[in-house]
Amino acid sequence: MTPPQTDPNVLRHGGALDAAIARHGGSRADWLDLSTGINPSPPRLPDLDPALWQRLPEAALEARALAAARHCYGAPAGAGLVAAPGTQALIAALPHLFAPADIAILTPTYSEHALTFASAGHRVSGFERLEAVPTDAQIVVVVNPNNPDGRVFEPADLLALADRPAASGGLLIVDEAFADVAPSRSLASATGRDGLLVYRSFGKFFGLAGLRLGFALTAPALATRLAERLGTWAVSGPALAVGATLLGDASVVDQIRTDILRQHELLRTALDGAGLPLVGGTALFTTVSHPSAHALFAALCRRQILVRPFTAPREWLRFGNPADAQQARRLETALREALAEIGTS
Amino acid sequence: MTPPQTDPNVLRHGGALDAAIARHGGSRADWLDLSTGINPSPPRLPDLDPALWQRLPEAALEARALAAARHCYGAPAGAGLVAAPGTQALIAALPHLFAPADIAILTPTYSEHALTFASAGHRVSGFERLEAVPTDAQIVVVVNPNNPDGRVFEPADLLALADRPAASGGLLIVDEAFADVAPSRSLASATGRDGLLVYRSFGKFFGLAGLRLGFALTAPALATRLAERLGTWAVSGPALAVGATLLGDASVVDQIRTDILRQHELLRTALDGAGLPLVGGTALFTTVSHPSAHALFAALCRRQILVRPFTAPREWLRFGNPADAQQARRLETALREALAEIGTS
Repeated sequence: MTPPQTDPNVLRHGGALDAAIARHGGSRADWLDLSTGINPSPPRLPDLDPALWQRLPEAALEARALAAARHCYGAPAGAGLVAAPGTQALIAALPHLFAPADIAILTPTYSEHALTFASAGHRVSGFERLEAVPTDAQIVVVVNPNNPDGRVFEPADLLALADRPAASGGLLIVDEAFADVAPSRSLASATGRDGLLVYRSFGKFFGLAGLRLGFALTAPALATRLAERLGTWAVSGPALAVGATLLGDASVVDQIRTDILRQHELLRTALDGAGLPLVGGTALFTTVSHPSAHALFAALCRRQILVRPFTAPREWLRFGNPADAQQARRLETALREALAEIGTS
Repeated sequence: MTPPQTDPNVLRHGGALDAAIARHGGSRADWLDLSTGINPSPPRLPDLDPALWQRLPEAALEARALAAARHCYGAPAGAGLVAAPGTQALIAALPHLFAPADIAILTPTYSEHALTFASAGHRVSGFERLEAVPTDAQIVVVVNPNNPDGRVFEPADLLALADRPAASGGLLIVDEAFADVAPSRSLASATGRDGLLVYRSFGKFFGLAGLRLGFALTAPALATRLAERLGTWAVSGPALAVGATLLGDASVVDQIRTDILRQHELLRTALDGAGLPLVGGTALFTTVSHPSAHALFAALCRRQILVRPFTAPREWLRFGNPADAQQARRLETALREALAEIGTS
């Protein structure tokens, strides 16, 4: 099955808002951008020592950020952690560490894993169920919870899958970009063993995607190889400092969880009120279905609300969380008008 | 010939200052760190819109940073530019774009190029003169001006070398990390053609190494392949914004050139006054020779001044620029005392 498709020229570099403004007018301040799954209300940035910008990032600072990530994500002392300028840098680098292999990706999911493995010369196939993954797939990729449909996989089922490729030198990759709000299903605590790699994204949960910070949690030897591909000092001093502070502050993490769940409740209420059938989602986004989803997308754009359309399935629309009740009311009004305008409700 | 060697455990991640503090005491504020070739007096950071931290870096912002770099470095419209989280990320990624090949590196030079090409499975050889590079070397690496000896290569000689590998699908790599103060020898204006790639480092000249920003200037097809290896959104929003502003401000660039030249004059005066024979250098550092260089290094550490020693040649010591006359006087005094202490002068 083909993964959900969006227009890569628009999505790359998050240029969707610029494209929407170019087409529908308005300024950035006029638009309500719900096209991402990024927390819309980040915590206050810690004060940044000017030396963080000036000096090469220090080993001690990187160690502090890695220790905070290890603690926050619950990775054991024996796991190898790699900090990168965003999970995307890891997703781009990892496929090149392996000779061409059979890659099984749980689909439908977002397309970056398939694109980067295919571009590195691997044979990529999509499977809708864990049970359908061929026993000889050398590398298996699961996004948990999944984007954009929010499907969740149980840790025990995934660990059973990790046991299989590990025996043959293979690898289970679990992309936990949206796992932070409900971390009970995270496999972070199982990392360190061979055959398992977990990605964690800093920017989405903390609402600081521009900072560029992401982590891989895996066996120490693979972590070393991955870090070498990124090169020394891959993450900026400010990103390491912000990551070390926020990942290390349990009260900030708890507050963000509470905020995101409240914002998500606002989103779900707005979408329910509009009668849009739920496909699924995580606490940071909800995907719904509509027979004229592209017309609804355009009608929302005319109201300067940007959401995420798909080219396949064409019926899906993904909504990020509003930041507050005011934004949620704006979304409710716009949905009502837009649905009336396109002649369905 | 072996490239100049430093202790990789100390130098990686710029941990030299931490190691020196651990051994000789004092706090960071007590130390005068002359161990890097980074401008010690960066310009004021532009104000940063909070959205730069929050949103994924926008295509329009990256385009602004690349346009400013193209203008500042003098690259033609036809050149492909890649922005990376530091030149080091490019140096780590590039060797993996090529099948194992014969790599010729002009030596002695700093070790990262040799390390990353060797780690990617290439056969690496060092040559002391351009004329000695074998005609069948597929990839040639030149650092111009060179680090740590400051040797300069003439553009015409380098272009002749670029013509040769280009004909056979090869590549001349010119690392211009220290070219900004005297850009007349830069090959940036010749990029865009096949067979030539130039690295430019933002952090050293602007004194903002913690920001992580560097560029490759090359043929468009190679630039695309290199960017793909880095992954989308590899550079942070704040780094792109700072880069776009400072690279685009000719008066800032001119002022920094003036400041660096003045600081370098202070450094040269201090080293001349100490009677230390000059090996060479660039405007951002000077390398001198001393028969007991390691003893001199340690005696300076006891005065909480950190410089860069080498394991080969053991006689070399590299000094970065002092920020001002006060730091220069401190260096002069420390050199006089240190040389007396180790029994030579």
